Amino acid sequence: MDRTTLLGIVIGVTSLVLGFVLEGGHIGALFQLTAALIVFGGTLGAVTISFPWSQLKKIPRMLKEAFTEPKRDPHKLIEELVELATVARREGLLALESRAMEHPHPFLREGLMMAVDGVDPQALKQILELTIDTREEEKLRAIRIFEAAGGFAPTMGIIGTVMGLVHVLSNINDPSNLGPAIAVAFIATLYGVASANLLYLPLANKLKARLQEERLELEMMLEGILSLQAGEHPQLIQTKLAAFVQGRVPAKAEREETAYAQAQSSRSA
Amino acid sequence: MDRTTLLGIVIGVTSLVLGFVLEGGHIGALFQLTAALIVFGGTLGAVTISFPWSQLKKIPRMLKEAFTEPKRDPHKLIEELVELATVARREGLLALESRAMEHPHPFLREGLMMAVDGVDPQALKQILELTIDTREEEKLRAIRIFEAAGGFAPTMGIIGTVMGLVHVLSNINDPSNLGPAIAVAFIATLYGVASANLLYLPLANKLKARLQEERLELEMMLEGILSLQAGEHPQLIQTKLAAFVQGRVPAKAEREETAYAQAQSSRSA
Amino acid sequence: MDRTTLLGIVIGVTSLVLGFVLEGGHIGALFQLTAALIVFGGTLGAVTISFPWSQLKKIPRMLKEAFTEPKRDPHKLIEELVELATVARREGLLALESRAMEHPHPFLREGLMMAVDGVDPQALKQILELTIDTREEEKLRAIRIFEAAGGFAPTMGIIGTVMGLVHVLSNINDPSNLGPAIAVAFIATLYGVASANLLYLPLANKLKARLQEERLELEMMLEGILSLQAGEHPQLIQTKLAAFVQGRVPAKAEREETAYAQAQSSRSA
Amino acid sequence: MDRTTLLGIVIGVTSLVLGFVLEGGHIGALFQLTAALIVFGGTLGAVTISFPWSQLKKIPRMLKEAFTEPKRDPHKLIEELVELATVARREGLLALESRAMEHPHPFLREGLMMAVDGVDPQALKQILELTIDTREEEKLRAIRIFEAAGGFAPTMGIIGTVMGLVHVLSNINDPSNLGPAIAVAFIATLYGVASANLLYLPLANKLKARLQEERLELEMMLEGILSLQAGEHPQLIQTKLAAFVQGRVPAKAEREETAYAQAQSSRSA
Amino acid sequence: MDRTTLLGIVIGVTSLVLGFVLEGGHIGALFQLTAALIVFGGTLGAVTISFPWSQLKKIPRMLKEAFTEPKRDPHKLIEELVELATVARREGLLALESRAMEHPHPFLREGLMMAVDGVDPQALKQILELTIDTREEEKLRAIRIFEAAGGFAPTMGIIGTVMGLVHVLSNINDPSNLGPAIAVAFIATLYGVASANLLYLPLANKLKARLQEERLELEMMLEGILSLQAGEHPQLIQTKLAAFVQGRVPAKAEREETAYAQAQSSRSA
Repeated sequence: MDRTTLLGIVIGVTSLVLGFVLEGGHIGALFQLTAALIVFGGTLGAVTISFPWSQLKKIPRMLKEAFTEPKRDPHKLIEELVELATVARREGLLALESRAMEHPHPFLREGLMMAVDGVDPQALKQILELTIDTREEEKLRAIRIFEAAGGFAPTMGIIGTVMGLVHVLSNINDPSNLGPAIAVAFIATLYGVASANLLYLPLANKLKARLQEERLELEMMLEGILSLQAGEHPQLIQTKLAAFVQGRVPAKAEREETAYAQAQSSRSA
Repeated sequence: MDRTTLLGIVIGVTSLVLGFVLEGGHIGALFQLTAALIVFGGTLGAVTISFPWSQLKKIPRMLKEAFTEPKRDPHKLIEELVELATVARREGLLALESRAMEHPHPFLREGLMMAVDGVDPQALKQILELTIDTREEEKLRAIRIFEAAGGFAPTMGIIGTVMGLVHVLSNINDPSNLGPAIAVAFIATLYGVASANLLYLPLANKLKARLQEERLELEMMLEGILSLQAGEHPQLIQTKLAAFVQGRVPAKAEREETAYAQAQSSRSA
Repeated sequence: MDRTTLLGIVIGVTSLVLGFVLEGGHIGALFQLTAALIVFGGTLGAVTISFPWSQLKKIPRMLKEAFTEPKRDPHKLIEELVELATVARREGLLALESRAMEHPHPFLREGLMMAVDGVDPQALKQILELTIDTREEEKLRAIRIFEAAGGFAPTMGIIGTVMGLVHVLSNINDPSNLGPAIAVAFIATLYGVASANLLYLPLANKLKARLQEERLELEMMLEGILSLQAGEHPQLIQTKLAAFVQGRVPAKAEREETAYAQAQSSRSA
Repeated sequence: MDRTTLLGIVIGVTSLVLGFVLEGGHIGALFQLTAALIVFGGTLGAVTISFPWSQLKKIPRMLKEAFTEPKRDPHKLIEELVELATVARREGLLALESRAMEHPHPFLREGLMMAVDGVDPQALKQILELTIDTREEEKLRAIRIFEAAGGFAPTMGIIGTVMGLVHVLSNINDPSNLGPAIAVAFIATLYGVASANLLYLPLANKLKARLQEERLELEMMLEGILSLQAGEHPQLIQTKLAAFVQGRVPAKAEREETAYAQAQSSRSA
Repeated sequence: MDRTTLLGIVIGVTSLVLGFVLEGGHIGALFQLTAALIVFGGTLGAVTISFPWSQLKKIPRMLKEAFTEPKRDPHKLIEELVELATVARREGLLALESRAMEHPHPFLREGLMMAVDGVDPQALKQILELTIDTREEEKLRAIRIFEAAGGFAPTMGIIGTVMGLVHVLSNINDPSNLGPAIAVAFIATLYGVASANLLYLPLANKLKARLQEERLELEMMLEGILSLQAGEHPQLIQTKLAAFVQGRVPAKAEREETAYAQAQSSRSA
């Protein structure tokens, strides 16, 4: 369960609705079926035209992914890869066969199996990199659906409001009703801008952040597999893999750098 | 027949029109000839200036492409390429001559013919990559016509509305008529924004998604041709080609990865 | 004469003006000197600040280029290059000297002359690529003037309209005159948006499309010169050069691919 | 303490508030709780959905970084690196061990330690470059939170204003109150645009400028470590490192270039 | 003196003011202190937060650069470099020492000195390229200040106008005063949009155009230094350097190409 996704939606929607109610607004005034039809139907239409079915059918899976939090632990992964490298170095690559075959992670499993099977390092690297790239590209294409929805929704809101104004202004006999009618027309803009900025675009952002972490994990696996295939020293492999997560825990490092800079500047004063 | 293209247009247009009618609007109020002339004529003009005739004449073909769905089956393609590689390895490249000559796909046919004819691998790679790139570039240029139309249409809508307001405000003698006249002026904005967001831009998106799949297919063919020319083992070729579609069927792989992450995190708990 | 440039302007302007007149507007209402002064003068000023004189003075030449259509024939060019390669292979590079010296195209002439003069292939490649790049960059810089004008014009239109409104609202004594005065203020927006979207931006697009074709032609010449200098077989040179235009005539190829896809999908059904 | 960050906020906020007050506005009119709730709550919600917790928790550290100014002195750093290189060249890499271990800067310390430990130059380069890249990427991801807030805030302002207008227009019984009510609705737009343009976006800019300087420092260290490991002459190392800061003190160089250009042009006159 | 910068500002400002006056506007209505405070103070604040002091202090120098025109003459530069190469080839690199030391251009001087000092070609290339890149990056960072101001100014204008409207609408007792008060509020928008589009953005454009020419000059010097160090034939160096400016004088070349295209098309007719 990724708490920030749900929490963010709750914070956002609550702030908007509460703000409206505290101003004295009637909560019922925010619900309007025709505006919803225009904005959500229009966005759905534009998205459906934009993407092939093979992409569209991934929406539920991507949604689920945005709300669940994978528990990646790169440090555990480094440990595991170093251990595998130690075995490979001591007992040969073949000694990894049973562990590779049973490994729960499909990328690591297939990569290790190919290394065990003696696939040429050059070819192995090419295959694993291509796998990472196509996987990322596939996910990016699904994420672009949310970005497209975030682009279309506000324009559908504008269309809904303009249509409302066209309707209102064409039948302007009763000026006393003008205000409420325009208010209704504005609801479409509200739906369009709010759905884009509280749903589609933030979800796309979250999914992209997730994808980046996933890619990092796969790249660490790739580096680990190639290094153990090359028979590199486990210590060196550890150092290499640690560089991938160097940026992750810079709190202490940063304090030291700040201290360094301060010391330097006091010396120069 | 690409059902999503047509379906999306139906969903989008129906949502907009239905929303307008349910609000009590007169469907006739949405049709206005002068607005259509300004928006569609203006967009056509801007697009015609923007592109040379050699590109403009591709519009009908691109439109047709957006509404038809090619039945690409990358797994079948892999099978075929592996089979060709098996023949080439067993009986030599010349054994492929008749199959190459008769192959229905022009890129594969010409690529195989060149391999059979003994074109130098380096040159073959250069030629096939250049072919893929120029084909993609050519299609992208045609797709940019739709993107350009999607950029010009809303501005033409604004021009139409401003011209309408100029007309209305210059002849403001009869204030009772002001509302309906402004309503009419807004129709141009409606046409501009709706045509861009329900036609031009989504169609450009669809065509780009299509192009990406096409490119993937050609790249698989390229990899297959070069690999069989190099006499690589069919098993390796299969593995290489499978990496292209790894990202395509990740449902099972993803479940495994999730299970892996969960297991890892429970272990760490 | 590039008919699409002129035709597009005619279509665009006619659509706008006709739409306005059909709505009952007075054509004279669209002409207003002060709005023109603000929008076109302001755009001219912003563009003049933006670019050095060495770029600005290219505007007339670029305009002329947008309205004339070069008759490039890549197939003829291939023929010519292959013929030159045949001569070079049979009789040696020196046999090209007189043809090179008299060649009407300066890039081809100078490139051939250098090849004949025995310039080192590496250096020749570097020089010709640099020539292509700097030529493209120079043209792009001039095209960016039109793009900049297309960016500045609508903002100048907004400035004109806001200034008009400032003037109108400061002297609001006569409310009966308010409508026509606001109408006049809107003309500036009209000029700004229309000039950007019917002139500056489409012309920049056309010039970029032209530039792309020009680059392709120069790259074909580069490839041809280097290949004939290397003494490659004319047949191979022809195949290589054909890859540049493969994307150009894909009508037949595409029909075949569609047929291939259909056949494949029926087999899989 | 980075004075420009605080100073800029003071200048910006003072200018806005003072301008409002000088126009005769009541300062109290700028404070409105419901608008603040909608804009800041909505932005917080959108940002919370957009980023995983591992990024969000970096906000306080990034904020602190935006307000403090590191005293980097690239010239001191060059001095130090050249001195280290001199020692390494004279007494061997091992002579650096104690200095490396005690070095306050973590990147330099670890890089030097690896050089002393005899890590292969190729591997050392790969590890240090990866460290720089992942650190930069990690910081960029945190900076993108501010950029996202700067993108969401104005749209939340629009949402707040539209909701205010919906409320106002639905209860239009008392037209005398219409003005002040609309004024209140506009406060949300004010909050959204001002928070984005006086806080989120400028802070993101500052953090990116800071990041660029940090990267430069790390790249100088990388170059220094690799050069001293390769046993290059300290003089050459100094020249190389000086090139990193060449662009930093161009005042004198520029004057000379100007003089050169002037001289050249007078000669050509 | 770069005449186009000043001329452009004069053209732009005159057009706007003259247009306003010709429409019957009072020139005094365009001056308003509070709007200026909000727009220019707000922009200054946002820019001050955005950039470190080390960048901000370059503003005056960049401004001066935008208004002065360097008299670069690439053809003279080629002449000079070819002459230096001739000397180096005939009498050896050392013969350049005195000329190098006295050369007024710092980049050329230091580059030649290093070549004379026998710096390894690989290292020399790396150092000179790094110098060019860091110089360009440093200048770009300063130019981005103007671009940032051009982005912030219009939003500050919107803030000023919204604040003005808030003030006006809160005190709507005197409707007769409504028009002039709104007019005053619009002045802020005017300042924001006009300062961005007649100052900040065009100046950034000009500075970037200038930077591009500067880079070209430095790259020619780099090429020249490396070539003369390698002892290449002056004739070849001349041809190489000429390729940098090939794009600069294409008038004749283009006429020839047009003639070529015409001839070709008439032959094909």
